[in-house]
Parts: sequence; structure tokens; C-alpha cells
Amino acid sequence: LADAYRLDELARRVGGTVDGDGSREIRGVATLDRADPAELSFLTNPRYRDAALSTRAGAVLVGPGVELEGRDLLVVEEPYLALARLLELFHPAGPQPPGLSELAHVGRDVRLGEGVRVEPFAVLGDRAVLQDGVRVGAGSVVGEDSVVGEGTELKPQVVLYAGTRVGRRCLIHSGVVLGGDGYGFATSGGKHHKVPQLGRVVVEDDVEIGANTTVDRGTLEETVIGAGSKLDNLVMIAHGVKLGRDTLLAAQAGIAGSTRVGDGTIWAGQSGAAGHLEIAGGTVVAAKSAVLQSIAERSFVAGIPAVEHRRWKRSQAELGRLSELRRRVREFRARLDALEARLGQEED
Amino acid sequence: LADAYRLDELARRVGGTVDGDGSREIRGVATLDRADPAELSFLTNPRYRDAALSTRAGAVLVGPGVELEGRDLLVVEEPYLALARLLELFHPAGPQPPGLSELAHVGRDVRLGEGVRVEPFAVLGDRAVLQDGVRVGAGSVVGEDSVVGEGTELKPQVVLYAGTRVGRRCLIHSGVVLGGDGYGFATSGGKHHKVPQLGRVVVEDDVEIGANTTVDRGTLEETVIGAGSKLDNLVMIAHGVKLGRDTLLAAQAGIAGSTRVGDGTIWAGQSGAAGHLEIAGGTVVAAKSAVLQSIAERSFVAGIPAVEHRRWKRSQAELGRLSELRRRVREFRARLDALEARLGQEED
Amino acid sequence: LADAYRLDELARRVGGTVDGDGSREIRGVATLDRADPAELSFLTNPRYRDAALSTRAGAVLVGPGVELEGRDLLVVEEPYLALARLLELFHPAGPQPPGLSELAHVGRDVRLGEGVRVEPFAVLGDRAVLQDGVRVGAGSVVGEDSVVGEGTELKPQVVLYAGTRVGRRCLIHSGVVLGGDGYGFATSGGKHHKVPQLGRVVVEDDVEIGANTTVDRGTLEETVIGAGSKLDNLVMIAHGVKLGRDTLLAAQAGIAGSTRVGDGTIWAGQSGAAGHLEIAGGTVVAAKSAVLQSIAERSFVAGIPAVEHRRWKRSQAELGRLSELRRRVREFRARLDALEARLGQEED
Repeated sequence: LADAYRLDELARRVGGTVDGDGSREIRGVATLDRADPAELSFLTNPRYRDAALSTRAGAVLVGPGVELEGRDLLVVEEPYLALARLLELFHPAGPQPPGLSELAHVGRDVRLGEGVRVEPFAVLGDRAVLQDGVRVGAGSVVGEDSVVGEGTELKPQVVLYAGTRVGRRCLIHSGVVLGGDGYGFATSGGKHHKVPQLGRVVVEDDVEIGANTTVDRGTLEETVIGAGSKLDNLVMIAHGVKLGRDTLLAAQAGIAGSTRVGDGTIWAGQSGAAGHLEIAGGTVVAAKSAVLQSIAERSFVAGIPAVEHRRWKRSQAELGRLSELRRRVREFRARLDALEARLGQEED
Repeated sequence: LADAYRLDELARRVGGTVDGDGSREIRGVATLDRADPAELSFLTNPRYRDAALSTRAGAVLVGPGVELEGRDLLVVEEPYLALARLLELFHPAGPQPPGLSELAHVGRDVRLGEGVRVEPFAVLGDRAVLQDGVRVGAGSVVGEDSVVGEGTELKPQVVLYAGTRVGRRCLIHSGVVLGGDGYGFATSGGKHHKVPQLGRVVVEDDVEIGANTTVDRGTLEETVIGAGSKLDNLVMIAHGVKLGRDTLLAAQAGIAGSTRVGDGTIWAGQSGAAGHLEIAGGTVVAAKSAVLQSIAERSFVAGIPAVEHRRWKRSQAELGRLSELRRRVREFRARLDALEARLGQEED
Repeated sequence: LADAYRLDELARRVGGTVDGDGSREIRGVATLDRADPAELSFLTNPRYRDAALSTRAGAVLVGPGVELEGRDLLVVEEPYLALARLLELFHPAGPQPPGLSELAHVGRDVRLGEGVRVEPFAVLGDRAVLQDGVRVGAGSVVGEDSVVGEGTELKPQVVLYAGTRVGRRCLIHSGVVLGGDGYGFATSGGKHHKVPQLGRVVVEDDVEIGANTTVDRGTLEETVIGAGSKLDNLVMIAHGVKLGRDTLLAAQAGIAGSTRVGDGTIWAGQSGAAGHLEIAGGTVVAAKSAVLQSIAERSFVAGIPAVEHRRWKRSQAELGRLSELRRRVREFRARLDALEARLGQEED
């Protein structure tokens, strides 16, 4: 049902070149194992080279220097980026007609921009602002005095607590909770007294937040998700955290309160950072690792506590060879005993 | 209020035998510390043997070879399974009358089977299909073109993104999100560009998914939860993962993108696997462990990175004895020094 | 817009003393870097002493013995607790008028106390009880036969499964699921058979539960969250767990089934405990740690598996010095070889 394109036309659209038959007609994009001869497939991860050699795809999108005997190739500098563009071409986002559902609940003094879509059972709190083109999914709650920026989409069952600000062109997935109270308690005599959480959550432009992720507000400070950041599912961002621009946080990662993270960091799955730290921009944290101290310079760290990745690797290797080391030490003892015995004898 | 049964009648129903008074009347099932003489209790975990010796229960459900002096026993091969059957007998699931709430929102061309129940504020997207006996809890959202199989129950506040397929006799708990976008971004010049996520999530028959668990869709590939699998709460299944049949995933576990998992694996709490791996069927992953490489044969693994469990145990033990090893090495140095000194003297 | 108070009046209200000008007028509370001369700031964490030295704040709330040259100080024994009190003073909780939204769905035989607030699209199941002053946020579901205690607030999109009991003065954040089925399956022939989960969840008084946290019901046993406990976001409490009073569980922590935890324990982020354990009151579990055995006495533990914290620290230090140890052992081998060679020669 999608239009067909000549391979050289696709190349032109993604700034690539054809290695093979540019006149080939392509009607869609599919994975290597499912593509048929009228489809383009893609090799963006070298693990799948075998599949690329046996695919039925009519052509394959590849990066520079990749050779696939007897195949028409669409060669680009950045194949994964080109894949994104081609998928948008073949699968343009379906139209979601604007409109305010009669089954939504709209508070007082709500301001709605042009082309806003609000689905059934959504709740817009008093004085909430939805800028142009905002979409609010079924059952989502936009708290009082919240602002949702132009073109942003809240999927069903998102909750924005009062006063939350979400920037433009963001995508917030189902179950996300923005602006819940930070975990702040003053303990006295063994009892934990709540410290009011009056700060707000600010999500800057072009951020995507995965399903069931939570971002808390702080006592007085803002919690900030920097522009262009992408958070996966079930991530936890605590009160007062400042995430720099273009942060990547994979699933189930967590950053504790008041930690400041520079631009362009990458956090692998189930990693975490303690509170009140400063993490240098560009830092990469390996899966399952726990950053327990500030990181002054862009680093690649791993482990619990996280240390420089090479050091962690070496420690792991050493750990695996410990039995052998112990055996050797035991052997030395025997040799030492023997030497001492002989020298003792000689003395006698 | 439940009916009473003779102990030998209960034995008959679960394929067991009575060791004691088969005519004893049983009116219910209770835990060892709470049961009264008209109730049956159970010993399915040997840790609780002391409680079984002091229980007031009229009879105790046990496995083969268990002895409890002076107690009437109901002996079965698989006591935990028998417990399940007996609980169903004494506590039959309450009737939830079918019917489509007037407070639900139903899109166009939705197809509803017989005996479907849809609770208030649920949303059924256009062309959604609910087969016979499906129950959709309050506030749940069944996205466009989704299919929910016969006898499946969605508890309140479940979200199925468009095009999701859930099999028969599944139980999906509150807060579960199926079909959210996979975490796929093409990074170019430090900016992360969204790769469209057009695949779908397929949950096969007889699957249970715990509260607030998320399962993502992939770029083009399906994400599959194999038949009979049971996922606990707050689990993350990333885009394109294929879980085999009868997988057990305990709470807060996570499997990264495109990893393929064989049948019958067990993942303990807070464990995880990296992406693009192949994990052999029957593999067991210990709590908190991180599988970072493919596993070719059924294994029991532990650690970060996960290694064969025995090896991990040994490494942990070695780690605990490192101070002692270091002390011994220090002592050897002294002995070596002494030996060398003596030989040096002799030379002089 | 808040009233202004003299500094000595604030000191009186929090039981502190002024070190400086007690007549200074204070109009609000702000962070060190944002406060202006009409505001009070606070130094509750010594990390921020530099910021306290350069703040523009008119006065600073501090603990005993803190000196900040040339500043008016409000000195109290417990500054974080005093901060909580002062924030409540300057930011009294906004009035949320009581009332039952016409857009809520109320089952049969529901009992509502005085001053109850129920927001749009909330669902109150049959026979649910909301005591005086309860607030139920938009879209929240209070299951059949559940009881919510006086003054408790459920934020939007909370789910209480049938029969859940929540105490007085609790605060339950969005996305929390209380009473979902415990993860109980009887495996027979490789198939997992559901064991009915008939227990209930009991949340005692003065508990706060963070966003998207889940607490499961057990087969027959109650799952109990002890009075005064504070759970952060994305925490998992499994079936049959008993948490003592005043438990602190930071984000993404998890406690497996049937574990009993004494009063006043602290669980840092992403920590966990296996099932069927007994954990002594007052125990502190470090971030990312996994408690795999019972803890008989109040301890500070860390690691996977968790051991006494000092021991863990030592092991980590040893691990870091392993390369050096190996080098030394290699050197000893050379020395031993040389010694043996010489003795061998002498023998010849």
C-alpha cells in the first residue's frame, strides 16, 4: 500500500550511493530474515552479517566498506540514521485527528493551543497549558499549572503532577509519572518526617521518556531532564537531579537525588548513581554498575563501585584466576619449606 | 461458608493419600501459624518444618517422605501444585458479571466476543478485538487493532499500544504497558534521532505479567513472550526480545533488545541480560546477575558478568580469603629474604 | 504572598536560637544558590558549605556548631527537620475541596466518611470504605472491600486490588499498585500452574509509597508495610513480606517473598533481599547490594552477596590490588627458582 521508490531515489533521499542496480523498485523495509525481493533490508549491526548474506531482500542498506557479494547495496555514512529516515518515508505517522474528547475532564482556565488532541478520560488540571499540536492520551492527567510544549505527545496514562513543565516535541510513554514527591524525610528519634517537596520537574525539548519511568520533584530545586535526552522504561530520576543534554539512560537505571550529570552521558541498563555527585559529560556507565563517587573527567566506568572500565576488566580477570594464584602460593610454601629444611640440615 | 470436605475426599481430588484419619472434616486451607483444627495447612518449604510441628491445623499437606508425629497428613507427589488445586476448590473465583460499562469508551469497528466484561473508563481503540470471556479492567486502554484472546483478563490500568496481540487465558496486572516504543535511536553528531518502532508485541497463551512490567515493540521485529511464561512485577522486556515458552522472570529483571531466550529459563530478581544474545533453554540466572554473553548450553549462572554458578561461588570465596592470601605472600617475602641473605653470607 | 516572619519568631517555632540579628524579616525559604536577602536558606548537608559561604540569603538554617562568618544563623539541633517545619509554614498545603466528582464511578454499598474527595474517573469498588478526609486522585481504582484510612491521599492512577487496607495519614503516589497477585506458581512437568493469591496487602499508618511501586498479596498470608515506613519509587515488595515500622526503602529496591524485616531498616537504591529471610531491625543495606541470607543482628551490609560492610570494603580494596599481588608472586617464583638453582649447583 505504501508507494514504491527506485533504489537510487532512496539513496538520494538519505544522501547515499547505490552499489548495484539503482533502478530496482523498493516497496518497503523489512528485517533481513523477513524481507522479500521487493523490500530493502539493513545491516546496522555486524553481528547479523550471516543473515545479510542469506536474506531474500532486494537490496540492503549498509555502512561504508561493507561488501555483500551479488547484492544491490544502498551505502550511507550512517546506516542506522538512514534507516530511521526510510522508515518514516514508508510508514508516515498515521493521522491522529485533533479534538477535545467530550469524555475528558477540563479544569478551569485551561489554555489549549491549535490542533490539540485530548483523548477520553484525560484530566486537564486548572490553569494547565497545552501548546499547539499537543496530544494527551486516554486517562492521562495533566496537573494544575502544568505546561506541555508544542508538538509533545503524552501517551495514555501519563501523570504530570501540578506545576510540571514538558518542552516541545517530547514523547512521554504510558505510565510515566513526572513530578512525584522527592524522597525527602527528616529522621528524628527513629521517625521519618516528610519534608515538603515544592520544586518542580522540567523536561526540556526533544526528550523521550519510556514507559513507567518516574521523575521526582525536589524540596525546592528543579529536577531537569536536559534537551534531547532519551530515557528508557522503568528509569528513576530522583529529586533535584540535573541531567545534561542528550543523555541516554537505558532501562531500569536510576540516578539518586541532587546528582548533576553533564551532557551526552550514556547509562546502560540497571546502572545507577548515588546522590549529590557530579558526573562529567560524555561519561559512559556500564550495565549494572553503581557510580558512588563524582567523576571529574569523561570516562568509561564499570563495577560496584564503578571504576575505570579497563581496571574493572582487569579485576574481573584477576578474580577468575584467583584459585590458580592461591595454588601457586601453596606450591611456593612447599618449595620454601624444602629450601629451609635443606639449609637447616646443612647448618647442622 | 465454603463447603466442608473429608480429608480422604480431598486426597482423591489431588491424587494423594491420607496418612491418618481420612474421615476428618476440612473446612478450609490456612497457613501453619493461623490454621485451626478444622483447616488443612501445608508444608511446601522445608524451612517451615518447625511451624508444621506446632501448627493447630487439623491436617497438613506434605510431599512424599515427610513425617510429622501425630498429625493427619495428606501426602502428594507435588504439594505446591496440590495446594493450588485445593485453594481453587475452597475459594472458587468470584463471578464477575459480563457486560460493557456505559462509562467505557468504545472505538469504531470494535469486535466483542461472548461474555466480555469491560469496566468503567476503559478505552477500546478502533478495530480492537476482544474474544470470548475477555475482561478489561477499569481505565485500561486497548489500543487500535489490538487483539485480546479468549478468557484473558486485563486488570485495571493496563495499556496495550496499537496492534498488540495477547493470547488466551492470560492475566495482565495493573500498570503493565505492552507495546511501548523500543529504545532505538540513531546517534549522529551527538544527537539522538528516533528510529520508528513499527513492530508489535505478541504475548502468547497462558502468560501472566506482573504489575508495572513493560514490554516494548521493536523497529520492525516482533517482541514475543512465549506461551506459559510468567513475568513478575517491574520487569523490562526490550524491543525484539523473544522469550521461549514457560519462562520465569522474577521482579525487576530485565532483558535488553533483540536477545533470544530458549524455553524454560528462570531469571531471579533484579537479574538482567544484555542485548543481541542467545540464551540456551533451561538456563537459570541468579539474583542480581548480568548475562553479558550468549549462553550456548543450559547453565546455572551468577555474577556480573555472569559465569557458571560454581565458578562464581568459588570466586566469592576466594575474594573473602584475599587478606589471608596477601598475609601469606608477605610472610613468604620475609622467608625469601632470609634465605637469600643466608645464601649470600655463605657465598661471602 | 506568604507572610513575613522575624527570624527570632521562626527560631521560636522550630525550637532553635538565632546567632545574629533576630529582628531580620524572612519572607520565604530558598536554596543557597537562589535565595535572596529576604529569604532563609539552609545548610543540611556539609557538601554545600561553599554555597553557604557565598549565598545571598538573609539568614541560614544550620545545625549546632556550624560557623558562617558574617551571616545571621538560625541554629537548631535537627536542621533538616526544622526545614520541613518551616516549609510547611511558608507553603501551607493548598486547599483541595472535598467532594465526590460526578465523573467518578461508585460501586454498591460504598461508605464515605466526612470531607472525602474523589476526583474524576476514579472507581470505588463495591463495599469500599473511605474514612474521613480521604482523597482519591483522578483515575485511581479502590478495589472491592478495600478500606482507606482517615486522612490518606491516593494520588491519580493508584490501584488498590480488592480487599486492600491502607492506614491513616498515608500518601500513595501515582502508579502504585497494591495487592497485585504474588508471584506464586507450582511447576510440574515444566509447566507453571498459578497458585491462587488470596492474602491481602495491609499498609499501616503514616506510610508513604513512591510512584510506580508495587506491593503484592500472598497466597494466604498478609503482606504488611509497617507504620511510618517510607518507600521510594519503583520499589517491589513481594507476597507475604512483613516490613517493620519506619522502614526506609530507596528507589528500585526489592524484597522477595515471605521475608520478614525488623523495625527501622534502611535499604539504599537498587538493593534487594531474597525470599524467606529474617532481617534484624536497624539493619542498613548499601546500594546495589543483595541480601541472600538472614541477618540476625543489626548490621551494615554491602555487596552481592551482602556481607558486613567493612569486610566488603576490604574485599574491594584487595580486588583493586590483585594485579600487584600477582606481580609479587611472579617475582617470588623467580627468586625461588634462583635459590633452588644455586642449591642444586652446590649439591652437584
